[in-house]
Amino acid sequence: MFLTRTEYDRGVNTFSPEGRLFQVEYAIEAIKLGSTAIGLKTKEGVVLAVEKRITSPLLEPSSVEKIMEIDEHIGCAMSGLIADARTLVEHARVETQNHRFSYGEPMTVESTTQALCDLALRFGEGDEESMSRPFGVSLLIAGHDENGPSLYYTDPSGTFWQCNAKAIGSGSEGADSSLQEQYNKDLTLAEAETIALSILKQVMEEKVTPNNVDIAKVAPIYHLYTPSEVEAVIARL
Amino acid sequence: MFLTRTEYDRGVNTFSPEGRLFQVEYAIEAIKLGSTAIGLKTKEGVVLAVEKRITSPLLEPSSVEKIMEIDEHIGCAMSGLIADARTLVEHARVETQNHRFSYGEPMTVESTTQALCDLALRFGEGDEESMSRPFGVSLLIAGHDENGPSLYYTDPSGTFWQCNAKAIGSGSEGADSSLQEQYNKDLTLAEAETIALSILKQVMEEKVTPNNVDIAKVAPIYHLYTPSEVEAVIARL
Amino acid sequence: MFLTRTEYDRGVNTFSPEGRLFQVEYAIEAIKLGSTAIGLKTKEGVVLAVEKRITSPLLEPSSVEKIMEIDEHIGCAMSGLIADARTLVEHARVETQNHRFSYGEPMTVESTTQALCDLALRFGEGDEESMSRPFGVSLLIAGHDENGPSLYYTDPSGTFWQCNAKAIGSGSEGADSSLQEQYNKDLTLAEAETIALSILKQVMEEKVTPNNVDIAKVAPIYHLYTPSEVEAVIARL
Amino acid sequence: MFLTRTEYDRGVNTFSPEGRLFQVEYAIEAIKLGSTAIGLKTKEGVVLAVEKRITSPLLEPSSVEKIMEIDEHIGCAMSGLIADARTLVEHARVETQNHRFSYGEPMTVESTTQALCDLALRFGEGDEESMSRPFGVSLLIAGHDENGPSLYYTDPSGTFWQCNAKAIGSGSEGADSSLQEQYNKDLTLAEAETIALSILKQVMEEKVTPNNVDIAKVAPIYHLYTPSEVEAVIARL
Amino acid sequence: MFLTRTEYDRGVNTFSPEGRLFQVEYAIEAIKLGSTAIGLKTKEGVVLAVEKRITSPLLEPSSVEKIMEIDEHIGCAMSGLIADARTLVEHARVETQNHRFSYGEPMTVESTTQALCDLALRFGEGDEESMSRPFGVSLLIAGHDENGPSLYYTDPSGTFWQCNAKAIGSGSEGADSSLQEQYNKDLTLAEAETIALSILKQVMEEKVTPNNVDIAKVAPIYHLYTPSEVEAVIARL
Amino acid sequence: MFLTRTEYDRGVNTFSPEGRLFQVEYAIEAIKLGSTAIGLKTKEGVVLAVEKRITSPLLEPSSVEKIMEIDEHIGCAMSGLIADARTLVEHARVETQNHRFSYGEPMTVESTTQALCDLALRFGEGDEESMSRPFGVSLLIAGHDENGPSLYYTDPSGTFWQCNAKAIGSGSEGADSSLQEQYNKDLTLAEAETIALSILKQVMEEKVTPNNVDIAKVAPIYHLYTPSEVEAVIARL
Amino acid sequence: MFLTRTEYDRGVNTFSPEGRLFQVEYAIEAIKLGSTAIGLKTKEGVVLAVEKRITSPLLEPSSVEKIMEIDEHIGCAMSGLIADARTLVEHARVETQNHRFSYGEPMTVESTTQALCDLALRFGEGDEESMSRPFGVSLLIAGHDENGPSLYYTDPSGTFWQCNAKAIGSGSEGADSSLQEQYNKDLTLAEAETIALSILKQVMEEKVTPNNVDIAKVAPIYHLYTPSEVEAVIARL
Repeated sequence: MFLTRTEYDRGVNTFSPEGRLFQVEYAIEAIKLGSTAIGLKTKEGVVLAVEKRITSPLLEPSSVEKIMEIDEHIGCAMSGLIADARTLVEHARVETQNHRFSYGEPMTVESTTQALCDLALRFGEGDEESMSRPFGVSLLIAGHDENGPSLYYTDPSGTFWQCNAKAIGSGSEGADSSLQEQYNKDLTLAEAETIALSILKQVMEEKVTPNNVDIAKVAPIYHLYTPSEVEAVIARL
Repeated sequence: MFLTRTEYDRGVNTFSPEGRLFQVEYAIEAIKLGSTAIGLKTKEGVVLAVEKRITSPLLEPSSVEKIMEIDEHIGCAMSGLIADARTLVEHARVETQNHRFSYGEPMTVESTTQALCDLALRFGEGDEESMSRPFGVSLLIAGHDENGPSLYYTDPSGTFWQCNAKAIGSGSEGADSSLQEQYNKDLTLAEAETIALSILKQVMEEKVTPNNVDIAKVAPIYHLYTPSEVEAVIARL
Repeated sequence: MFLTRTEYDRGVNTFSPEGRLFQVEYAIEAIKLGSTAIGLKTKEGVVLAVEKRITSPLLEPSSVEKIMEIDEHIGCAMSGLIADARTLVEHARVETQNHRFSYGEPMTVESTTQALCDLALRFGEGDEESMSRPFGVSLLIAGHDENGPSLYYTDPSGTFWQCNAKAIGSGSEGADSSLQEQYNKDLTLAEAETIALSILKQVMEEKVTPNNVDIAKVAPIYHLYTPSEVEAVIARL
Repeated sequence: MFLTRTEYDRGVNTFSPEGRLFQVEYAIEAIKLGSTAIGLKTKEGVVLAVEKRITSPLLEPSSVEKIMEIDEHIGCAMSGLIADARTLVEHARVETQNHRFSYGEPMTVESTTQALCDLALRFGEGDEESMSRPFGVSLLIAGHDENGPSLYYTDPSGTFWQCNAKAIGSGSEGADSSLQEQYNKDLTLAEAETIALSILKQVMEEKVTPNNVDIAKVAPIYHLYTPSEVEAVIARL
Repeated sequence: MFLTRTEYDRGVNTFSPEGRLFQVEYAIEAIKLGSTAIGLKTKEGVVLAVEKRITSPLLEPSSVEKIMEIDEHIGCAMSGLIADARTLVEHARVETQNHRFSYGEPMTVESTTQALCDLALRFGEGDEESMSRPFGVSLLIAGHDENGPSLYYTDPSGTFWQCNAKAIGSGSEGADSSLQEQYNKDLTLAEAETIALSILKQVMEEKVTPNNVDIAKVAPIYHLYTPSEVEAVIARL
Repeated sequence: MFLTRTEYDRGVNTFSPEGRLFQVEYAIEAIKLGSTAIGLKTKEGVVLAVEKRITSPLLEPSSVEKIMEIDEHIGCAMSGLIADARTLVEHARVETQNHRFSYGEPMTVESTTQALCDLALRFGEGDEESMSRPFGVSLLIAGHDENGPSLYYTDPSGTFWQCNAKAIGSGSEGADSSLQEQYNKDLTLAEAETIALSILKQVMEEKVTPNNVDIAKVAPIYHLYTPSEVEAVIARL
Repeated sequence: MFLTRTEYDRGVNTFSPEGRLFQVEYAIEAIKLGSTAIGLKTKEGVVLAVEKRITSPLLEPSSVEKIMEIDEHIGCAMSGLIADARTLVEHARVETQNHRFSYGEPMTVESTTQALCDLALRFGEGDEESMSRPFGVSLLIAGHDENGPSLYYTDPSGTFWQCNAKAIGSGSEGADSSLQEQYNKDLTLAEAETIALSILKQVMEEKVTPNNVDIAKVAPIYHLYTPSEVEAVIARL
């Protein structure tokens, strides 16, 4: 019953009688409204591709950043509230820089993901860095470390999973099905690029152009594709 | 259903069951009640133009400030709650001055915008500088740095976008349409001035005079037009 | 709908669905219950005149202070909650004294007004000096600095405007109309005194006497009129 | 409408839609339940007289203190919650002692009254010395300083007025009318004593005795009358 | 109307529209449920007597302490919540010991009572030593200092009165009437003992024994009667 | 009326109109759901016996601890929330160790009990060690000090009583009646063991075995009976 | 009645009128939604086995960690919210490392379990490390110390029990019955592996494979089985 739910979620971070955390579930709803992002792991590296919603022709497409670098060897694609994602990414950048400074080596992709999720988990706790609500964002974290390439998926509850391929955002349901059909572990990076973009094309309601998608890879260094590199992938579809 | 909404927004910064943040949406409503402001980026620099609502002939028009200097190379136009805007601008002024002092060079326009949005995002968090509610204001931030001229648009959620041209405030819908029709990247600064003022004229319900509009440019230095400079642009319409 | 409003204003400083801040609007209602005050700027200086409500013949009229000195060159008239006004004036006195001490020169009238409004804006924030509700008072701030005479008007939202003439309080609507008819920039200080008192006379329900009005000027030094000086202005009506 | 009011006053210190502060108004109701107190200023000094409600013959009348000394030159009579009054008086005693220590001279009566009201105004603010609700007490502050004798009246809102004569408490309405009839500025101190006690006699429902009234004067030193001095005034009625 | 009351008392320490503090009134109800205690002041010293409710024959009567020593020259009897009383008594013990240490002399009975009431008054204020609710206890404080013997009565509002004789607790109404009939200032200490116990006997529903009453005196030193001393008083009835 | 109660208990530690503290009463309900515990004081020492609810044959009976050592000379049996009891016992262990360290002698049983109750009383106060709700546990504290053996009983309100014998938990009503019939001060320790276990047997719904009861004594040193020692007592029934 | 419950659980950590803590009960519901985990203690060591829900073939099975190492001699299986479990495990890792560092020896399994439960108990207390709600997770803690092998079971209330065998999660009811039938203290470690996996097989709705179960042992060192080791156990079913 809908009205009963509202009794619980105002406590921000408390259980409902069925053992659910509604604010986390509502934050997940925020992500279902977001643009679609896709990640694929190959032996050569990880590919990230995102839909960019350019609501006006007067917007500068490059300022709609939905793929960001965390460190030289880690990047992430996001869906949901962009301002929330920026806070998480900024936190991760500080963590990875501190790690390099303290230990003289890059932070592993899993540790970086864990650090992000620790912050996400502590919403509603009132301490300095945490938010008063869950972060309304999911991330696909692509990285390369001593264990080779890896792809992580995080949600607003502060949980994370390692994946071979994953889609997030409003088109994620259909995109995930397509990924299961087309993914195999022996894909080349170029094949992964093509699959990512072709799936993105299916869920987008407009023609794919270098203006409305972004592609990046970590192989083993983070690189955001230039418009002409994106154009080249589009041409292969 | 309207009454159900009210259950959520009192938590200031919590998600509704649909994944929405109502206080942010309500703050955006505050901006829709505000006066109209317009920004255009040209290769020569950026133009800002605002409507000033002079509710009484006994008000000093120059004291109704809707365009403000942030630093020598950055200015902004605003729509919404002026007292909120002043807090944001004051914060940005301190940040840009600190940057000059620490690094001996001006802060980039994007970093300045990011600093403003970081403050805006943290409403309801209870820390010292943040507000207990979202800032009820949108800004058009015009600047010039090593990357040339740029125009940013911020909203109460703490999100920002880079634009070629943008309108905010009560007349923004019509003004944005007109901008899309008339804008191209090869406009001269003088043409941009004329377009900005002619669009402003359409959305205002009274005759345009140096008393009820303000114009400024960053080209590459911030300059607020004198009444006679405004008069000259009006004459060109 | 009235009952729905009440859902919002208890959050003290949060937006309603229409983008309004109800506590600020309610505080403005407090001022509409207050006594009337009038300010006029002339080239020779600024005149302030207020109605004093003497509820009992046993009250000492001089202890009903509705015009106060902030610094040698700044004074203010108030309408609304007197105890709130005292807090704001005390804050402004400290600020102007600190400025004199730090910089060896008087604080400008605009900076003083800004400092007052910064405090007013931060209600509900929980920091040390701020109130848990808006200040229920409007001020007319008269001053004289390097830019000559000036008159500012502040409201409970922390916004301020520079004016040539302005009325606040329960009789402000009628008084503002009269000011627009009778004000021009070439008034002498004596003419301004006469206009202020004649308008005050219209909105007051009793005979004007040195007991129930106060007059002050900043020209360029703050001076509160003695009963006989007030008597002299009354005689000119 | 009564039930609507209750929506507002729980916020302790917030405005109602009509611009009212209900907790302050309710505190004023507490005073209307209190015992009556009267003050009169003469050229020779100030007289305070209070009704003492002795609910049991086993109570020690002298322990029902409704007139208290603040400093050698200042005393006060109170009506409302006695425990609240004690807190305010204790605060004023510390302030006047600190002033003597810092400046080597007595604090003026107005400054002392202002210090009391500053504390009263800040209820609900959460800082250390303030209360979570308004102080439920009114004071008549009698004093003598370089400006001669003076009488102040304070209410729970933190506002104060200087008076020639004033009554507070449950019988204040009738007593104030009597004071207006009988007061003039040329009363002797002895005449003031007689008037105060005769008015108190009217509003009390029992015979006036040294057990159920207290009288004090500041002329120019605070003095609480002994039972025989009170008896002497009663004898003059 | 009962339900309306509930709107107010949840604010712990706020006024109702009639100017009442409900939490204090409810705490007073807690005392009306408590066991009866009686105090009488004589020229020779003060007598305290209390009813002890021994709910089970297996309880150790001496562990039901309803009369406690505060300092060598001060004791108190209590009615209401025993755990609350212990906190107040512990506070008073620290205060009196600190006073002896700082000034080399015992604290006066009135100062000790004032210190207790200061703590009681500050409930709901959130500072370190205060409670979040009123203390649910009344005390009869018996002492002897430079002013001779004295008896004080405190209630949960933080107010105190000096008395010649007083009863508190569930039987206080009848006991107070009896005290008014039988008390006179020339009672001997032995007569006071007899009166106290005979009144206690009337309000208790069982036979008086050394197990279910306690007697103490301050004359001028605090002394709690041994069972045989109590037996001796019972024998005199 | 049930629904009206709910208005009060959410304030955690506030009085109801009848002067009751509902959270404390509800905590007492938690204890009525708990397993039964019994204590008896003899001249030779104190015996504690508890029922252990072993919900599964796979549970390790010795890990269901319902009797714990506080210090060498003090032990306690508990009924209610075991996790709450552990916090109290841990607090008491620190207090008794600190006392030994500071004074070179064991803490008295009464002081230890008082220290436990001070912590229990302060629920809802927000300071560091206290809980946000009452501790949902009753303790029977058995000890031996310079005053010989003693048995204390504490409840969630922070009140304590000294007893000769006492039962707590779901079977306490019947057990207390049996104790009153069978207890006398001249019992030997062995007789007390037998009585405790025979009463426990009556209130338990299953056969008594070393697996589902625990027995301990303080005589004068705390000792928890081994399974074979428990078997020996069972054999005597 | 369902709606009445909602009145209580919003206070996070307060008793209901029946003496229940609803947030804890709701957290236990969260665990009933979780995947099943099983632990068995043998003389040779402890076995843990968990069901892994692999919601997508693109998930990396090894990244779904439901068994984790705490220290060399302690591991744990979990059911409920994985992010909460990670926080508890991280806390336990720090505690065991600190213990090794301070005392030069491993922490006992019981002390480690107690440390975990101390953190779990303090939810809603507002101190730094605690959560604003109960931890929505149950743990099976397997360890080996100077007392030999041991298995502990913790729930969200902060209570723990030592067990010979235990199941948690959605299939725990049926699994516990099977454990009671099949468990005896003389099982070999290999037999325990077989029992754990055969029971898990019954409650899982799909075929058991090395991808959807994890097995670990502490015998006496923690070891997580490799896919081929799991395959070997499956082959024995």
